[in-house]
Order: sequence, then C-alpha cells, then structure tokens
Amino acid sequence: MDKGAPLNFLGLPAADHPSFDAAEVVILPVPYEATVSYMGGTRFGPRRLLEASRYIEFYDHELDAEPHTVGVHTMPELLLSGAGPERALAELRQAFDPLVASDKLVIMLGGEHSISAPPIEAHAARLGKRRLSVLQLDAHGDLRAEYEGTPFSHACVMYRVHRQVDLVPVGIRAITAEERQLIRERRIPVIFGHELDAGGGWIDRALQALGPDVYITIDIDFFDPSLVPSTGTPEPGGGTWYPTLHLLERVFAERRVVGVDVVELAPIPGIVAPDFLAAKLVYKLVAFYQRARGAVRRA
Amino acid sequence: MDKGAPLNFLGLPAADHPSFDAAEVVILPVPYEATVSYMGGTRFGPRRLLEASRYIEFYDHELDAEPHTVGVHTMPELLLSGAGPERALAELRQAFDPLVASDKLVIMLGGEHSISAPPIEAHAARLGKRRLSVLQLDAHGDLRAEYEGTPFSHACVMYRVHRQVDLVPVGIRAITAEERQLIRERRIPVIFGHELDAGGGWIDRALQALGPDVYITIDIDFFDPSLVPSTGTPEPGGGTWYPTLHLLERVFAERRVVGVDVVELAPIPGIVAPDFLAAKLVYKLVAFYQRARGAVRRA
Amino acid sequence: MDKGAPLNFLGLPAADHPSFDAAEVVILPVPYEATVSYMGGTRFGPRRLLEASRYIEFYDHELDAEPHTVGVHTMPELLLSGAGPERALAELRQAFDPLVASDKLVIMLGGEHSISAPPIEAHAARLGKRRLSVLQLDAHGDLRAEYEGTPFSHACVMYRVHRQVDLVPVGIRAITAEERQLIRERRIPVIFGHELDAGGGWIDRALQALGPDVYITIDIDFFDPSLVPSTGTPEPGGGTWYPTLHLLERVFAERRVVGVDVVELAPIPGIVAPDFLAAKLVYKLVAFYQRARGAVRRA
Amino acid sequence: MDKGAPLNFLGLPAADHPSFDAAEVVILPVPYEATVSYMGGTRFGPRRLLEASRYIEFYDHELDAEPHTVGVHTMPELLLSGAGPERALAELRQAFDPLVASDKLVIMLGGEHSISAPPIEAHAARLGKRRLSVLQLDAHGDLRAEYEGTPFSHACVMYRVHRQVDLVPVGIRAITAEERQLIRERRIPVIFGHELDAGGGWIDRALQALGPDVYITIDIDFFDPSLVPSTGTPEPGGGTWYPTLHLLERVFAERRVVGVDVVELAPIPGIVAPDFLAAKLVYKLVAFYQRARGAVRRA
Amino acid sequence: MDKGAPLNFLGLPAADHPSFDAAEVVILPVPYEATVSYMGGTRFGPRRLLEASRYIEFYDHELDAEPHTVGVHTMPELLLSGAGPERALAELRQAFDPLVASDKLVIMLGGEHSISAPPIEAHAARLGKRRLSVLQLDAHGDLRAEYEGTPFSHACVMYRVHRQVDLVPVGIRAITAEERQLIRERRIPVIFGHELDAGGGWIDRALQALGPDVYITIDIDFFDPSLVPSTGTPEPGGGTWYPTLHLLERVFAERRVVGVDVVELAPIPGIVAPDFLAAKLVYKLVAFYQRARGAVRRA
Amino acid sequence: MDKGAPLNFLGLPAADHPSFDAAEVVILPVPYEATVSYMGGTRFGPRRLLEASRYIEFYDHELDAEPHTVGVHTMPELLLSGAGPERALAELRQAFDPLVASDKLVIMLGGEHSISAPPIEAHAARLGKRRLSVLQLDAHGDLRAEYEGTPFSHACVMYRVHRQVDLVPVGIRAITAEERQLIRERRIPVIFGHELDAGGGWIDRALQALGPDVYITIDIDFFDPSLVPSTGTPEPGGGTWYPTLHLLERVFAERRVVGVDVVELAPIPGIVAPDFLAAKLVYKLVAFYQRARGAVRRA
Repeated sequence: MDKGAPLNFLGLPAADHPSFDAAEVVILPVPYEATVSYMGGTRFGPRRLLEASRYIEFYDHELDAEPHTVGVHTMPELLLSGAGPERALAELRQAFDPLVASDKLVIMLGGEHSISAPPIEAHAARLGKRRLSVLQLDAHGDLRAEYEGTPFSHACVMYRVHRQVDLVPVGIRAITAEERQLIRERRIPVIFGHELDAGGGWIDRALQALGPDVYITIDIDFFDPSLVPSTGTPEPGGGTWYPTLHLLERVFAERRVVGVDVVELAPIPGIVAPDFLAAKLVYKLVAFYQRARGAVRRA
Repeated sequence: MDKGAPLNFLGLPAADHPSFDAAEVVILPVPYEATVSYMGGTRFGPRRLLEASRYIEFYDHELDAEPHTVGVHTMPELLLSGAGPERALAELRQAFDPLVASDKLVIMLGGEHSISAPPIEAHAARLGKRRLSVLQLDAHGDLRAEYEGTPFSHACVMYRVHRQVDLVPVGIRAITAEERQLIRERRIPVIFGHELDAGGGWIDRALQALGPDVYITIDIDFFDPSLVPSTGTPEPGGGTWYPTLHLLERVFAERRVVGVDVVELAPIPGIVAPDFLAAKLVYKLVAFYQRARGAVRRA
Repeated sequence: MDKGAPLNFLGLPAADHPSFDAAEVVILPVPYEATVSYMGGTRFGPRRLLEASRYIEFYDHELDAEPHTVGVHTMPELLLSGAGPERALAELRQAFDPLVASDKLVIMLGGEHSISAPPIEAHAARLGKRRLSVLQLDAHGDLRAEYEGTPFSHACVMYRVHRQVDLVPVGIRAITAEERQLIRERRIPVIFGHELDAGGGWIDRALQALGPDVYITIDIDFFDPSLVPSTGTPEPGGGTWYPTLHLLERVFAERRVVGVDVVELAPIPGIVAPDFLAAKLVYKLVAFYQRARGAVRRA
Repeated sequence: MDKGAPLNFLGLPAADHPSFDAAEVVILPVPYEATVSYMGGTRFGPRRLLEASRYIEFYDHELDAEPHTVGVHTMPELLLSGAGPERALAELRQAFDPLVASDKLVIMLGGEHSISAPPIEAHAARLGKRRLSVLQLDAHGDLRAEYEGTPFSHACVMYRVHRQVDLVPVGIRAITAEERQLIRERRIPVIFGHELDAGGGWIDRALQALGPDVYITIDIDFFDPSLVPSTGTPEPGGGTWYPTLHLLERVFAERRVVGVDVVELAPIPGIVAPDFLAAKLVYKLVAFYQRARGAVRRA
Repeated sequence: MDKGAPLNFLGLPAADHPSFDAAEVVILPVPYEATVSYMGGTRFGPRRLLEASRYIEFYDHELDAEPHTVGVHTMPELLLSGAGPERALAELRQAFDPLVASDKLVIMLGGEHSISAPPIEAHAARLGKRRLSVLQLDAHGDLRAEYEGTPFSHACVMYRVHRQVDLVPVGIRAITAEERQLIRERRIPVIFGHELDAGGGWIDRALQALGPDVYITIDIDFFDPSLVPSTGTPEPGGGTWYPTLHLLERVFAERRVVGVDVVELAPIPGIVAPDFLAAKLVYKLVAFYQRARGAVRRA
Repeated sequence: MDKGAPLNFLGLPAADHPSFDAAEVVILPVPYEATVSYMGGTRFGPRRLLEASRYIEFYDHELDAEPHTVGVHTMPELLLSGAGPERALAELRQAFDPLVASDKLVIMLGGEHSISAPPIEAHAARLGKRRLSVLQLDAHGDLRAEYEGTPFSHACVMYRVHRQVDLVPVGIRAITAEERQLIRERRIPVIFGHELDAGGGWIDRALQALGPDVYITIDIDFFDPSLVPSTGTPEPGGGTWYPTLHLLERVFAERRVVGVDVVELAPIPGIVAPDFLAAKLVYKLVAFYQRARGAVRRA
C-alpha cells in the first residue's frame, strides 16, 4: 500500500518535494494559450508533461547520477490575464523579476511560445552589458513584427527580443520572406532544419555562436513530428533525440545557462509518448544542470 | 461524375450559392477562441458545422418545405484581432453594424460565447426604445461581471448586455452565488435545467417572457452532453432535441427574430454527431424563419 | 486458466459453438462498404459487434431465459466483389437463396444498407403471393431511385424493393422531396422520427401496418445519436432503447419474422458503447425469436 | 494573474483546502484496477474526475447553497498492492478502519468495483447488530461467487458482502442465471433497468427497502451509456440524471448515509463529459450530505 | 480583423486565387474510395490536406522563393460514380484528357491509388512513341492482375499501366510472389524499402532508370509510418523526409515532369502532422516545378 | 465472393490453418494485464496484432520465400487467473511445460512483460546444464527485485530469471540505481539505448554475448516511440526497424532460438501502424526461423 504521486515534476511525495527556498531548480507551469495556430491545446501542455514526469526513473544511467537530488520544486500553475496578450505578458514579467533574482534555474513549461519573451527580457535586463545569448530550438522563426493584429503573438516572440539578445535559432524550417530578410540583415546565425540531417557539424556551429550566458527556449515543434506530433503546427524535417541531447549537454557544460523554457506542447488525447519525451527532456536539462553545477563547485 | 460540395452552409455548388445581396439569410462564421474553459476547440466549430451541413437533406419533411430556397449565403470566416478580447469584440461590432442594417437574418456561428455581445448590442442600438429580448439557451449563466481579469470573457457575455435587453435564460444549470444574486435583483426570468425535465410548461413560460423583438443566442452546451459532448464545459441535465425545436419554432412564429447565433461547439475529432446536430439546428432555424417570413408576406 | 473466446457471436468456445446444421439462428457478417456517406467504417461493423458480443451475459433476466440455447451459429465473413455494387449484390443474392431455403433465422450484420436488398428479394420471391412486409427502422428513407450514379447505393435500398413488399418505415427523419412524393403516391405508412417522441401509439400503428410475414431491417442510425454516434450520418431525434425493444418483441410475438439485418454500424475507435448496444440488440432479437418459436411449438 | 488549481476535489487552492481533521467530507481516490473487463482504464478514473471537478461551480442553485463550505478534504491517491486482489483488498480494509471511526463522510473514488467490499465490511462491522443497508446503483449484479478464478473480482463484490448487509440493487440489467437464482433465494429487492423507464415508482420502492443506515455504492455504469460511455462494459438502458439525483437526495434526507463510493469510471481520452458528470455527481452527494447534516444540527 | 482562408490549396483568399486559365499548376482533389484495405478514410484525404495547406508558409527558404507565385489553382472536388470502379475510372479518364492537353502541371490528390491509372494512361497516350516513365513512390507493388474480383482495384493500379510505361518503383516493401515474378520477367527496376536505409546510391539509380518524360505517383504509404501513420496499410521501413525531397528535386531538375499525384492519405482524426507533411510535400513539388520552369525559360 | 479471414495469425482460412501437430511454429496469445504502468491496454495487444497480421503479404521479398509454409498454428487466447500474479504465472508455467517439450517454436504474444518468466524458466529447466541465453530487447531493465509489493510484476521479470540464464539486454534506457548496481555486480552485458544510435557495432557485441541456445523476449517498447507509441511507458531514443531485423536475422542464423515472445503492445484505438509493425516483426521471426531450419535440414 502506497500513496499516489501528486502532480509535481517527477511526482515527488509531499515529504520529498523541496520548498522553493531549498530547491536549486524550479519548475514553473504557465498554461497560457491565446494566440492560437493550426491545432490548439498548449494550455494542457504543462499538466500532461507533469503527469508524464511521474513515470521517469530518478536515476540517469547516461550520467550515472540522480539528478533530482539537486532539489526540484514545482510551483503552482501561473494563470495569466484573459484581457489580452499585452497585459498577460506584463503579468508574467512581473512574476519573473524575483525569480530571476533568486539565482535558481527556472524551467518554465508552456503554453504558447509568446511567454518566452518576459523571462528573456528579465534575464537580459539583469545581465546589463553582458549580452545574453538565446538558443532557440524551433521549427518556426517566430520573427514576425506582428501577427493577427498584435506584436505579442507566439509568432512574434523572437522578433520582440532579437534586439536585446544574440539569437541562435536551430532547426528552423518555416519562415516568411520578411523573416528571411531580417535574418540576413541582422546576420542571425540560423541553423536550418535540413542542416540537422547533414551530419553533426551544426552542434559546433551552434556552440560557437553562443556567448557565455545562455537562455534556452525549446519550442517542442523543433523535434520531428514523428517524435512529437503533439504541437500546433508540426513541420516535417525536425530534430531527433540523441543529437539534441548532445547539443544541450554541451551548452550546459560549456556555457552558463541562466534560464530554460519548454513550450508549445499541445497534447493529443490518448497519445502520451510526446508528453513523456517532453518530460524526460526537462529531466535531462536538470541532469545537465546538476553536473555543470557540480563542476563549478568543485572548481 | 460530379463536383464536390464547397465549404458553405449546405455545401451549395457555386452556381446555387446566392450572393450576399440575393440572400435573405446570411451565415457568418466567427471562429474566435481566446478566453478558454475546460476543453477548448471552439475555433474549429464553424468549420466542422459547415462540413457537417453538406450532409443535410434540403427537404424538411416536418414543414414540407425546402428552406434553403429562402436564399442562404455563407460569408467567409471572420478572423478577429489577437490583441485581446476588447479589441476583437470592437472589430466584431464594427462588422455587425452594416449587417444589422441589411435586414437579413444573420446566423453567426462561433467560436466562444463572448462574440454574442456585439450583435446583441448592435440590434439593441438599432431598436432604440423598443427593448430587445434575448432568448439565451445555455447551461451557464454567463452573468459574471469579470472573469480571468477581463469583462470580455465568454463567462461575462450576458452580464455585458443584461442592462440593455430583457434576458430570458433557458436551461441554466451552473451559476455562481453572485449570478444568483443578480438574477434575483434584476428579476431575470431564468428557466433552470431541471425545469426542462418536468414537463412542457417551460416553453410557455419562456414565450411569455419574450417581448416582440427577439435575438436568439444558443450556447450549444444548452443541450444535454449525451447529445453534444463537444463543448467546453459539458454540464449534465440539459435540453433535448424535439422540445428545443418546439420552443424555437414558436419563437419564430410568435415573435420577430432579429438575429441568431450558435456558439461554443468544440468538435471532438472523429465524432461528428454533435457537429451534425448543430448544423441541422441551424437549418431548422432557417426553416422556421422561412415559414415565418411567408406568413408575414401572406399577411 | 481458461481459453479466450473466439470471434463468433457471444464468443462461444469451439465446443459450444453449434454447427450450421444444428443451429436455428445464423449470424452472417457482411462487411461490405462501397457507396459511402458522411463518415465511413461500416466494414468494421460486424467485427466490432462480434467482439462486443463476447461481453453479453447469456442469461436474459427480462425473459428469464438463456436465448443462446436456441443454437446460434456464426458464419465466416462474406466478402463481396470489389467490381461494383451491382455484381456485389448479385453475389449476395446467390449466397442468400440457400440460406432462405434453410428455414433458419438469418441475422445479417452489415456493412452498408445496400446489402438488405438481396435477402429481402430472396424472401419475397420465396413467399410468392404471400406478400412480405418489411419493417425498416431507419433515420433515412433510402427511397431514392438513384444515388451517385447507381441504383445500388445504400441510399436506394428501399426504393429497390418497395414494389415487391409492403414497406413500414419507422423513425425516418431525413428524406428528399422526391422520397416524400413517393411516400404519398405509394401510401407508405411512414412513422417519422418526431412521432417517436410523442407517446407509444406509434408501436400499435407499426404493428397494424405489418402483414403476417415480416423481414426486419435495422439501420443502426434509427437510434438517437446519443445512443449510437457510430454511424455514417447520425441524425438527431431518433429511437430509444426500451421502446424499440417493445416494438421488436411484439413483432416477433405477433408476426412471423423471416429474416433480420442490422446494418450501418461504423465503429468509432475507442468508443465501444454503441458496438455493445448493437450486439445486445442482436441478442434480444435471438431472445424474442426463441420465445416465439417456443410459443409456436407449444401450440 | 492567478494561481492554477491543484489536483484536489474542486481544485481548491492550498489555502482553502481544509486539513483532514477540519473536514467533514473526505475524498479518497483509489485508482485500483486489476480484474479487468471489456474496456479498461478505471485506474485513470479518480484522476480525471478530480481534474473535471475543478470546473464545477461552488454554488448549487438547486439547493441555494455552497456545499463545499462543509469542508472537503482530498486525500492522496491510495495505491494498493500488485500482489493480487486478496492482499490489495486487505490493505484497503486496513486503511478504512480508522476512516470509518472518524465519523466523516468518506467518498471513495475508484478504480474497479471490487474496492467497495472493504468499506462496506468496515461499516457493517462497526454497526454491529444494526444491519447496514447498501444501495447499489449498477448495471450488473456483481453477485457471482467467483470470477476469473478469484472471489475478489469486481464481478463478485456484492456477493462478498450480501450476507452481512441488506442489499438494494437499482438499475440492474445484466446478470447470470446463478445471480438470478441468488436474488430469488435471498429475496434481494432488485430494481431492474427497464423499471427505471416506467415512471417514478421505483424511487419509493428503493427507499422503502433501505434500513436506517445506508452505504451508497455507485458503479458509474448504472447510468445510461449515452451519458457515460466511459466505463468497462456499458449496458444500454440505464439511469438518467435528474431521477437519479432525486433518489439520492431522498436517501440523504430520509436515511443516515455512512459512506459512499463512485467507481468504474474509465475515462475515454478526449471525451470529458462523463468525467464531469461523475464529478458533479460527487458534488451533489456533498450537497445532499451538507443539507442533511444541517437538518440534523438544527434539530 | 481579417477574412478566414477558404478551402483551396494554401488557403488563398478569393482575390489571390488564380483562375484555371491563369494558373500553371492545378490541384485536383479526387476523394475516391471504393476498393478498401486495412484502414479506410482516403476519401477524406484531399479535404484534410487542403485544410493543412492553409498553415504552410508561402516562402520556401531552401529555394529562397515564393513558389505559389507560379499560379496555383484548386479545382472543386471531382466526385466519381458509385456504380463501380470501372465506370468511375472511365469518368476520371474523360476528365483528364482536356487537363493533359492544357499543358499545366496537374497535381491530383487522392483518394485511393486506383485513380492514378487514368492520368498515366492519358499522358502515355499523348506522348505516343515517346515512352512515359512513371516514378512510383510506394510501399506496395500494386502489380496484381486482379484483386477482390476486379482489375480496377488500388492493388492493381501499376499492373494496369505497366505495359504502356516504364515503371520505376521506389520504397517497395510488400509484394506477392506473383508480383516478384512479374518484376523479374519485365525487369522492372524496383528499389526496395530496405535499400533506402543503406545510403544514398538509390537516388542515382532511380534517376538513371527514368526516361525524359516522367509522371510521379506518390502513394503516401511510401513514407515510414512514423512520419505518416495515416494510411490504409502502413508498412514499417519506409522513406524519410529530406532524402525523398532530394530525389524529387532532382527529378524535376533533370527530367520533364508531366503530371503528379499524391494518394492514399487516410487522415486519423485529431492527428494533423501527416496531413501537414502531405500538404508540404505538394508545395515542395510546386517549388521544384517552379524552379525547373524558370530554368527552362531562362534557357 | 470470398470468405473473410478468421482471427488467427495471417488470417489463414480454416482449410489452410495447420493443426497444432502439423505446425512447426505456434502462436500463443496471452492477453494478461495486471500490474500496470503509465498507459494500459496490453491485454488488447494479441488481438490487435492478430487482426493486423491479416494484411501481411505471405511472400517475403527480402528472403524470397513464403515463410508461412513452415506451418503456423495459432492457439486460442490463454486467459490466466485473476487471483494475482503469482498464481497466474504458475498457470502459465504449467501451460508451457508441454509446449517446450514439443520442440516447436512457440511465439508468445503479450500481454504484460511478466509473462516472459514462465517460458524462460521452462526452457532453462529443460536445457539443464546448457545455460540458456536470453536476448532482451527492451527500454527498461525490468531488473527490480520487487515492484508495487510483488516480485511478479512486469518490472521484475528479468530479475526473476537473471540467476538462471545469461541475460543480454539491448536498447535499455530507463533503469534504477539498484538495477545499475545489479548490472555491474553481475556483469550483465547491457547495450544501452544511446549506443544504438552510434553505429552498428552493437549488433556484433550482442551476438558475441549470446550462448548457443537463445530465448528472445521483445518488449515492444524497445522500439523508438516514433515507431511504436502504443506501449505502457514509451521512452524516447529506441531501436529502429532495419537494424533490429539485422540483429534478429543473425541470431536465428548463428544461434539456436528456442523460444520467442513479443509483449507490451498496448494498442491505441484508431492507430494501427504499431500493431502492424508488431505483426510484421512476428512474421519476420517466422521467416528467419524458416531459413535457419532449412539450413539445419540441408546440413
């Protein structure tokens, strides 16, 4: 006879779930969905990801470690205003300022991609002259100036921050002509989807483009739809599992990661494999973070 | 060999699809979804309803008529701003003013319930001192002053209009204590869900509460979830098919119906029966309208 | 430790499954689907119905009997030609002639409704001057002379036989103007869907319209879509469970039933309730038949 | 900006969720599923019911009350042994003894029906000579002595307790000949499914058969499959919403209800209406309990 | 506020949708499904593909072009006779003769594979002595002389044309012994599924086997089921995204493509990734065609 | 006109279905599911796999053979006790002893993984001092000493047998720290999931680790979830189609395979590709077995 796992990341029993203060890693679910695309349902993403996370083994055999021992606290879902994206994102920024100041690794779970702008802006503001790099794993450029009558759409999230940060988009395979133009003008070092299929050189290229401080935003549609059909606009020709982990492992090892988000998971009822992949991806990020922290401390 | 039906109401071939000017009835799809509830997907409602409508028989054996001969024009989908509900609804109001002036029967297909406010306000404004009655078939009161930080939510739509019109809510079975208070204060003649189960007296009561000019808003969750599981928050104990038609038939026969909407259909992939029910409901409205127009003309 | 049930009606173990010769009732699955409508999938109907039938209790508490003891043999699926409906139906007629001569009750499981014509024609031919009555439980008239370029469509099945038999359609709620005209000219005693909602008088009316020898064809879309959404074109306002059983029980008790079919079940993956309803309906038919046979024998 | 609701019944924020000691009503999720039938998935029942409960209005307009103010505490899921049903049910009994002693109303959420035996036995033991009545809303008799090699199957749950309590089964529409025999021998006052369709007399009959102390076990397959297709073996011809509430309201008003369970919900992915119905049913039970407690206190 | 996209390829607004005469590329939806296999639903293929196409970016970053500017007209769905495959395919041939004469690139969307024979025969007839090559991307040989009693089945489509054209099947991984025999006798240069996994040499081999004039028929089950589970008989071990595009790009660049079809998409409700892949594949074909036309013109 | 295929492996007509005695290969469906994990449904695995197998071509073009001619008999489903896993597995062992003695290749279809222990133990016992090797294709170690209160769980199956056999686990990507410890202590030659992605050397390593007599147990979650999402706990980073076949082909060619099972297929309603993959995998095993037998005989 045992107690069922509550709905936090990894399904930790209340007794083993560290407080916010005691945790080094904080999971923040933001089930915000307002500026929708083809299929919807990103507001169910955090809940299903957390549910799937209860079936992850604590032990990571690749790293020979128990990453959850770093202390992982799951915050309650953060519900944003229904009064429109501008106000909703302002609320999210307000919520992020103290989080950024806490020096914990916040892993935000979306929800639609527009929510990435507030944490990126908060980190960029805090770093001041040290310019933040943003590693964007994504199928879409999200570099439009405006979409559906608003600059706060998920399709505009990277345009909104691109002046304040160094953007490194990876896996892109759907952009407009205007986005292409912007990429050329700003010399944004995009790695396109078809380049992922042509060997591992792209991992080095991405690393080289990143400065010392990195925010990672993972739009789950970065992955090939065979792995993750559960997203708003699934584009064929995306990333695969192990190479993506190799990139992320190196970013944590060779840079300082200040924040992470995993967004745009739109669960399909009855199909849990993509939810589980997203949950395990988050746990891998915790693992890479733990190892990097350990390295720092030992140093 | 034949040509497949295009995506207008009833799937009329281009040659048989009347122009806006030539039509007496206009179908306006508004796939707006922003302030979501339990399940989502109302933005797919108009499309699936239109698709289902292609399988409706033109002939109505209960009325011994071909209601489509009244002239039914389907407008393109109206996409509203993604900048927030206030702006979106302002756009919708702007679109409705000329429609209201056209004296055609506009049947708006939603989309979430918040879109009912603009046409109701437009009709109320046009009628001036003649007070508009609104027949609201619905499971929920939708009488909250604010919800999720905005007064423009689907949960507030009837609160927004209740001062300008005489509200007659039917089928209600989920309200807050505040809504209950408002109903008492304003003496809103609600017919609750459980009253539908207790015999036909409720149809007379609803009729009596309606003034001469009526706008009908049908939140599809009015129907029992056994008939329509495809909606955001399906509440048990709702309306059934034939009694609902009896009510609507009498409203068209005994009052002047100025406008109609059918909202909150959130199709479930692979289950078309509710989409078809909604489509046939719309065609019944056309049929009742045609007969009432005929009666007027003959008079 | 036990052996799993094989895929015959009721899941009878091989030892308890009577041979064709030993059985009084024969189940004939005909997964034919060629002239499709809104949704498809009727070719999966027989298989899913048989699968569901394994979960039926043998004992019928309403009749205090074990109807399967009458002897129920399930034949292998009968696959018809893919060369077009005319040839397919000719093959089916050929298969039916010896079955009709066997004096067993054949319950055919469809498959689309067009397959009803061959057994009806075979029974009508055998009866000769004794005119066969056909009780048609159905949402649609199926009285078109031609559909999609062929008179062998599911939409034409009753037109094809209406001159040779006395047709008693029940539950009809979708017909064309031409079908309405035919009904009037031929004085076909249709009981419409909305009449089912208005009290039990329709059962007597249906009985009175039937002659002494009856073939029963049940298009599963006769039932209300809340009970059976799993069909090609689910029309709201259909029949319910117990009243339908009352009608069928009386037909077996007061007439001689020569054959039965249950068609147009188009299973929805993951939703078994309608498949189970259809299977239990078939078992009720076996029960009513058993009791009627018993009455005859005792007489 | 608001905090998302946690996964307790009604989604009460941590601050509003009463402790076990402070609550009068306790929700106990027992996602136990081992002796499966047609479809499976009852182990997901409690979780989906709780999820759906977050969308229930606190206010009950039929009772003009806020039933949650009685204090509703949700316990963590209770996971039972995988070593077989005998040991699992022994664990559950052990868990129930202190709960029964607490004098709170425990509402257990299943999981499969076999879990009803331990609480019933615990209550029967506590009452001693005062004989417990068990109101069983169910499609199946569950009165088999053994099933699939074990007397601890869901199909045997009522057989296991029938000697210790007075059983009042309602809605039964699938039993074996042996169960029929037992019903006759023990004079169990069964109300069959088809009797529900024949007017309201059955409610009085059920009431009269119940003694002063009542345990209510609701197998969700009691309801008609049009309302709840989400269960293991959905039998047509079941109970409807308002009459069922009328019965339960009277039982709470006219008897002392010592315990309740709602079992056998097996959610279908993507279809939430049945989950919501089950959640609202539980809230109605809380409401009826609150009113009955109030009556007692005032007395 | 904006107008929703109509149901043509790419969702072009009416004003931007070129007329048939003005277009160089014509999309012809043929939702024909009659000789079914494992799963069905190919008649929904064209509709869902068109729906998905509305979410494709117009700009193609791999080619740095806006391929839609070539002029893409979508014809209404072509519905074929229900009187059997022979007559249906005769109708299709009749429809194709003027299309072939128009010198536009017709991209036919199926529907089942049997519909490929009429356009191939029309092109072969037009070319006369210049022998047409047919590039067949497919999991199945489709080289049976007869299937289910008819030579017009989807399983026979390539047998029907193999004498008139040079067949180059690619990705084949399910054939009968008779088909194997035919392949040997006719020396058909099949590239089997397992050869796709063994490096890129197969692209050169396929190119070399093709003559100057090529018709491309893409049975969507050519792709690996991880990419496209939405088809009648999904065979493991199929083609992947980028290599398939490389092959097609070269065929357009190095040969003259006279016609294309994409068939056997059988959408799974709720899973849009495969529909989107098929739509994007069609747009890639338009892109390759545009570039090839440009090359020709510049030459 | 033809007879539909019955529910045996390959859908062989009764006349072509060899008796147990005449067959060299025996398919044994064991739909046992009791100790569940994330998603459930493994008890539907055998049925859906058999259903899918009816669409496999008899001819294998890679081997240029008709493997079914070896004689493949499908036994009825074996239903195990519901009294708990210990008794159920004892029953299974009892059933296996005569099967092992028969010298036929038994391919058991699960059902959950716990059912692999009885056949492995039976083979190990029969071999006596010749130590049996077990090739375990799996995502999970299944090496726990106990899980959910029982050592008979699916999560313990390999722990239960690891002392009696030489275990060669391949594709493992989820283990506990305790399992890692056991692997080190017992020097179990695990090939982890990420090693499959790094080139073909792992096939040689697996072969070298296997002794002369091999039992193959394939947990279908070995495959990447893009190929097989239909399993209880789908772990990203799994095996692919052709390399897995290469391994299995070599095992049959270079070792003596004494028994096989394919377990943990938990079909998702409406998605047949994984069921078909599993069925084709089984047929490939038959093919490899046939060729190996032929080699032995010729020798």
